[in-house]
Amino acid sequence: MDKILRINMGPGGEPAYKTEPIGDFAGLGGRGLTSAIVSKEVPPTCHALGEENKLVIAPGLLGGTTGAMTGRVSVGCKSPLTGGIKEANAGGQPAQMIARLGYAAVVLEGKPAEDKSYKIRISADGVEITSDPGLKMKGNYDVVDQMKQEYGDKIACISIGQAGEMKLSSATVAFTNMEQRPARHAARGGIGAVMGSKGVKVIVIDDSGTSMRSAKDPEKFKTANRAFVAGLKKHPVTGEGLPAYGTNVLTNVVNEAGGYPTFNFKTGRFAGAASISGETQAEMMKSRGGQVTHGCHRGCVIRCSGIWHDKDGHYLTKQPEYETVWAHGGNCGIDDLDVIATLDRLDDDYGIDTIEMGATIGVAMDAGLAEFGDGEAAINLVKEVGKGTPLGRILGSGAAVTGKVFGVERVPVVKNQAMPAYDPRAVQGIGVTYATSPMGADHTAGYSVTANLLGVGGTVDPLAPAGQIELSRNLQYATAVIDSVGMCLFVAFATLDQPETFQAMIDMVNSFHGLALTADDVVGLGKKVTKMERDFNARAGFTKNDDRLPDYFKKEALEPHNVTFSVTDEELDSVFQDL
Amino acid sequence: MDKILRINMGPGGEPAYKTEPIGDFAGLGGRGLTSAIVSKEVPPTCHALGEENKLVIAPGLLGGTTGAMTGRVSVGCKSPLTGGIKEANAGGQPAQMIARLGYAAVVLEGKPAEDKSYKIRISADGVEITSDPGLKMKGNYDVVDQMKQEYGDKIACISIGQAGEMKLSSATVAFTNMEQRPARHAARGGIGAVMGSKGVKVIVIDDSGTSMRSAKDPEKFKTANRAFVAGLKKHPVTGEGLPAYGTNVLTNVVNEAGGYPTFNFKTGRFAGAASISGETQAEMMKSRGGQVTHGCHRGCVIRCSGIWHDKDGHYLTKQPEYETVWAHGGNCGIDDLDVIATLDRLDDDYGIDTIEMGATIGVAMDAGLAEFGDGEAAINLVKEVGKGTPLGRILGSGAAVTGKVFGVERVPVVKNQAMPAYDPRAVQGIGVTYATSPMGADHTAGYSVTANLLGVGGTVDPLAPAGQIELSRNLQYATAVIDSVGMCLFVAFATLDQPETFQAMIDMVNSFHGLALTADDVVGLGKKVTKMERDFNARAGFTKNDDRLPDYFKKEALEPHNVTFSVTDEELDSVFQDL
Repeated sequence: MDKILRINMGPGGEPAYKTEPIGDFAGLGGRGLTSAIVSKEVPPTCHALGEENKLVIAPGLLGGTTGAMTGRVSVGCKSPLTGGIKEANAGGQPAQMIARLGYAAVVLEGKPAEDKSYKIRISADGVEITSDPGLKMKGNYDVVDQMKQEYGDKIACISIGQAGEMKLSSATVAFTNMEQRPARHAARGGIGAVMGSKGVKVIVIDDSGTSMRSAKDPEKFKTANRAFVAGLKKHPVTGEGLPAYGTNVLTNVVNEAGGYPTFNFKTGRFAGAASISGETQAEMMKSRGGQVTHGCHRGCVIRCSGIWHDKDGHYLTKQPEYETVWAHGGNCGIDDLDVIATLDRLDDDYGIDTIEMGATIGVAMDAGLAEFGDGEAAINLVKEVGKGTPLGRILGSGAAVTGKVFGVERVPVVKNQAMPAYDPRAVQGIGVTYATSPMGADHTAGYSVTANLLGVGGTVDPLAPAGQIELSRNLQYATAVIDSVGMCLFVAFATLDQPETFQAMIDMVNSFHGLALTADDVVGLGKKVTKMERDFNARAGFTKNDDRLPDYFKKEALEPHNVTFSVTDEELDSVFQDL
Repeated sequence: MDKILRINMGPGGEPAYKTEPIGDFAGLGGRGLTSAIVSKEVPPTCHALGEENKLVIAPGLLGGTTGAMTGRVSVGCKSPLTGGIKEANAGGQPAQMIARLGYAAVVLEGKPAEDKSYKIRISADGVEITSDPGLKMKGNYDVVDQMKQEYGDKIACISIGQAGEMKLSSATVAFTNMEQRPARHAARGGIGAVMGSKGVKVIVIDDSGTSMRSAKDPEKFKTANRAFVAGLKKHPVTGEGLPAYGTNVLTNVVNEAGGYPTFNFKTGRFAGAASISGETQAEMMKSRGGQVTHGCHRGCVIRCSGIWHDKDGHYLTKQPEYETVWAHGGNCGIDDLDVIATLDRLDDDYGIDTIEMGATIGVAMDAGLAEFGDGEAAINLVKEVGKGTPLGRILGSGAAVTGKVFGVERVPVVKNQAMPAYDPRAVQGIGVTYATSPMGADHTAGYSVTANLLGVGGTVDPLAPAGQIELSRNLQYATAVIDSVGMCLFVAFATLDQPETFQAMIDMVNSFHGLALTADDVVGLGKKVTKMERDFNARAGFTKNDDRLPDYFKKEALEPHNVTFSVTDEELDSVFQDL
């Protein structure tokens, strides 16, 4: 994993590729590497859909190893949604395979002069780049089916659906899971539009003939990994809650806490929550022959993903995640898991961020395009996106554009990116993360829900400003590290609460790479990555005014706690004062 | 003119009004007053369609007097299009009447809780505010007709069409002209959407019983006015070119200079220019019984506006201005003045900025929604806006949103506002103004075309960067003053070239208000206004990155001169270094 694969899509001549040594980027992986390359090589004021932008796909530092939870992939670029730097993250199979092929990153550069659709196959034999007009405007499921027919059953795919081809700002990049289905998405920030702008429909990864990457100190690595896995199994969230109910275990928790954004962030509790909770979802999945406890990539020991069957017992989509259930459910007043699963499947097939799309439909409902609670209307709205009608293009451009076009004032976005499933008034720590993350409103960037609601990593009153700044800051740095190692963020539940599990994670990195990093070094890496990202955004024109929630969160009190977001602007500006 | 009329539209209770002394704002008029009130009273980060925004309508310092050219009106607010401060400017009758009623400004504040449509009548007897559901979604022409039926023939109207009600970012505020037609528009920056957000459909001004404002020194004022008028009559642009052909006299000039943006800013010369030139237009108007030389407000001595008749000799719209003829003409490859006049009428009726709409259709044509040159398609696209279809709402939201929704990279905007009819590569001085004006891309903010192309106020080579910064800076300050006095910007042709005409203008202000301003004081006022505006934008989050043209103007060479925009970023940042 000491090479970078650069694929130049144009405009001069046919697409071409070259490999080069990792060079100055050595020691970086995942988000650390994507942000370093984007920060160094992409002009911050360039057009996100222009030839100067780059799409960087990078496994983490432990990608392609036997280490548990190391199958995440980072995708970086300048975001067409936020206008700032973006790292979006997914599970699935491709990361491990890219790593085993020896690539620290695959970088798509330039863009073709003509509107073509390319497939790229990356294997131990090299890289093939082929124009394939037949792929145009296919959904992700059809694209992957075609690739399996052409290249066999051992491949993994990275693809875009219609949304990416239309260059919509909610477009995702899809990664196939263990069953070779395009159900894991690096979803946020419109990165699929960047892939679409480069004319790349699908990247096929074939790691035949490669083997697991080997550690510098195999024995120590094995020991550390074993301790790490034991720690994950021991913790109640990663060992019990997530495997049993998936991420949707959160619905009842957050709703009970009064922080469940309902009806486009108008109230904090949804009367229909029980109908769409993780507990209900698990029951339904079991009764239909779906699979509740399942990993999204090999090497996962938490196994919070799952397989959703429709009423007839046939595969429809992966188990909808908590964020999706919320975005298409409570936020739109919809309490029907079959409707939500249908929306999830449509989103995955068109390649749309479910959070952005659910938030957008909430705004559209406020604009009068549909009634809150009308599941059929919501499905029809998402289908408009797939068809690329003018309405679909509006919705597919995200909540901010939809609000602008329909004159809606209450739009829950930061840096133009829609907020996820925690109301920042009732979970003020996550509000700090939404406001200040270089990524825009992003819960994964610093998941303060831990101490705010779950009692993980300490306890901080979610309804008051005290302690939220430090909480969010520490989590943002820690997350940048986890995203760089290529681990699933959920390891944080255990590493925050169990010092020995945190140490085991460090030991894994050290023994694999022959390093001697300390906990302080780890924080240092998190700061370094965050600083690069904030620096990029500053050069792109971001100011502290961009590190703010929309005004109405400070003015409209949220039921049931009757609370407004009360962290001050000055406090928000202090989050990164040590950078 | 020592009072401010404040009309509070809600949300608590019924709309109400109060008058108050001008107080701290004394000495300011027009743009100086609108920008001062917005800067002081509107939170820069508020939502432009929210209750904290204010719409300020202000005649100039010489409004309501017998002074020539003093009928302009400024409308200020936070712009929904740019997100910054906005002053848009129009002719027509209302400014003089508001001034004679004693109001330095009419300020719309708050917004109603419910979606209602109000008419407001302002007369010497006071203010009536009435909800009138029948006004909903009427075009400007129908609104004015209804108001004339209700309030008689002596009124003037300030109204919005469907676009303003839909809160679209290209919506204008319409002002009736001398024939009581809603053909003069404060057009830029979506200010009509702000009026719409406040539920105000029309403001009827009735100045019955009032008289001309009287000067402190009537004799001196009369003498100065006479000298001023003589200066305007003497200058070839204001005395000959504009009255003979209207503003469209520029088509041949700018096209010949190779700076006429054609096919969405792809080339600098339009083969069909002769068919839509001012000379051709004047011939057609004469042959159909239209009127070529005509003032847009009483007291105009340049008389560059006109009345356009259709093929059957019936009134259709005012004489389309140069900017409109370009935006709907050359920029879209359309060379048919009847098509352009039809588009002008639709724009005026729906209440849409013709520049923004023409630029938007150019972008839409690049997106493949219509062919360049297809007039019927252009008419249908504008009709979509009036109907409020999803496509219409996209287009009505302006060029930047349209580019985003359709994934078009080449979008000619600064601060999200579309560029007017001069390509900044071939008229580099106007490029400096586009980039740096607090208003976004706005030719009127510092009309460097004077020295770049017209030999007015000196000569600066339009194709090279030398001298452009100073040229734009000086014009931006001077313009802020003219906009504050309430004079038509076209007086600048004469005041730039003829020192005695400039002095006559200062003498008018001094003799009317009993002041002793010098030329330096005048520049000082221009700086003061500009500084307020830039300060508002900085507080709203603007940085020097916002003072840039889109990258492609620096990279794509423009035919026929094969020139790129070559003023450096550092030079742009020096425009306001003395503030």
